[in-house]
Amino acid sequence: MAGRRLLFKCELFQKTGSFKIRGALNAVRSLVEESQRTGRELPRAVVTHSSGNHGQALACAAQAEGIPSYIVVPRTAPRCKQDAIRAYGATLVPCEPSDKSRAETAARVVRETGGVLVHPSQEPAVIAGQGTIALELLEQAPEVNAVVVPVGGGGMVAGIAVAIKALRPDVKVFAAEPCNVDDCYQSKVRGELTPNAHPRDTIADAVKTSIGPTTWPIIRDLVDDVLTVSEEEIKRATWLVWERMKLLIEPTAGVGLAAVLSERFQAVPRDVQNICIVLCGGNVDLRSLTWFTDLSGKAE
Amino acid sequence: MAGRRLLFKCELFQKTGSFKIRGALNAVRSLVEESQRTGRELPRAVVTHSSGNHGQALACAAQAEGIPSYIVVPRTAPRCKQDAIRAYGATLVPCEPSDKSRAETAARVVRETGGVLVHPSQEPAVIAGQGTIALELLEQAPEVNAVVVPVGGGGMVAGIAVAIKALRPDVKVFAAEPCNVDDCYQSKVRGELTPNAHPRDTIADAVKTSIGPTTWPIIRDLVDDVLTVSEEEIKRATWLVWERMKLLIEPTAGVGLAAVLSERFQAVPRDVQNICIVLCGGNVDLRSLTWFTDLSGKAE
Repeated sequence: MAGRRLLFKCELFQKTGSFKIRGALNAVRSLVEESQRTGRELPRAVVTHSSGNHGQALACAAQAEGIPSYIVVPRTAPRCKQDAIRAYGATLVPCEPSDKSRAETAARVVRETGGVLVHPSQEPAVIAGQGTIALELLEQAPEVNAVVVPVGGGGMVAGIAVAIKALRPDVKVFAAEPCNVDDCYQSKVRGELTPNAHPRDTIADAVKTSIGPTTWPIIRDLVDDVLTVSEEEIKRATWLVWERMKLLIEPTAGVGLAAVLSERFQAVPRDVQNICIVLCGGNVDLRSLTWFTDLSGKAE
Repeated sequence: MAGRRLLFKCELFQKTGSFKIRGALNAVRSLVEESQRTGRELPRAVVTHSSGNHGQALACAAQAEGIPSYIVVPRTAPRCKQDAIRAYGATLVPCEPSDKSRAETAARVVRETGGVLVHPSQEPAVIAGQGTIALELLEQAPEVNAVVVPVGGGGMVAGIAVAIKALRPDVKVFAAEPCNVDDCYQSKVRGELTPNAHPRDTIADAVKTSIGPTTWPIIRDLVDDVLTVSEEEIKRATWLVWERMKLLIEPTAGVGLAAVLSERFQAVPRDVQNICIVLCGGNVDLRSLTWFTDLSGKAE
């Protein structure tokens, strides 16, 4: 269908259901190692704001290291993600679904708890953790010619781009983004960081946020191109992965495949043959499906 | 949750979306090899009746060998399975959803086309093909203490039992079956083949059929026990695999996990620690889900 050989990095199988555990673990362990090195106390808490997957991952990583966690979550985040965050022992703090409310609420929680903010995408230790996707990929599929990575805050694509361009500068790095929240695309076109002023809705809920001050220069310098896709294209790609690959990805993970199947991708030279698409997560809210509505509760 | 170590044989990732391709390929290739050995012509066609997965598999195998195929399918079979069968170039012949109508319609098609019937579960070459699941399993996980296999016609569990008991008689083989179509359980209890007289409905649509004359003696002699599960248990297990494992199994594949999570499984000795559950297929009818209903068509 794509006219190329497609490889899939299945991050939906990660603990917590998305790649976010990589960055969260690296950030929390870095804090622990730092306190051991300097003889200071462990952080009193870790705090973050997240549409869900990073929150879940940070809660899981913090629990593993015995540190309390506070997760600021937009009220609109899928309930399965909120439940999972609670299940990892975190304290949930609701906020409005805007970048501003998220940041303000998180700052307040940091003040109140004396905790350390672990930003979902702009924290360097988080970005470095996501970069391990690329290290594994180059080992698992050295024949790869390009990597396609969904972009929200840009932590994943920045981490991957840093690793790829250091080790294999011949490999292309493409960011894939919903048209409805195309701040990364706009930033590349204009040559300056251009956050979504009025982000529209997208089914790819995990990439609603904008790239930021840490990820933008990396994306500007190391990402080869940004490909935007429509909501319809995202849904069709997600459907395709469900139906044909039997992988229960979340719609955000469909963004990369949607980009590769799009008309526009035909412009990519034919010798870019082996393309790795990062299927970033699998946290779908199954309650939105009818199939199981006759179940009184759900399997715990 | 199970109190044991669970391993999963992911047959949902097979070509055609289920384990059935193993038996179908073995059957079609056996026919081709036989005609080459004897110098006779290739079969004019292969014919079968199937709730969907075997039909799809036989169509795929026949297409690979350049032989026409005719697939008798109950009118009630999921549409995605019917579409897939057509996509492999087969001719679909509808029948009523009863064992009798299936067998009669298939017999008529055999007469009309001069084709060879490849029974979905009672054909020895099919059973032998399904047995390769066990060969792979013993190689991939030699520590296994038990295998749990959903049973409909019994081809899969019979093939697996023959291979397991020949090579590793210490490994238990359990069949798992919906209470609503518990002919295998009833047959074991009574010590004689007892097909479902009036099969009730089950969400595990791929195991509605009864075991038969070839699979029954194998099941009688080589299968250690038959575990039955309720519709609720099947749905909860399927949900669990979707939500936690991110694998889009069909409900029939949830039958094995449901059995292992059931109260009754606690009676299995604790030293049966490493348990392999065969996730037999992933052909879910996604059209029954609301999530994508706003799509005008679907990705082809």
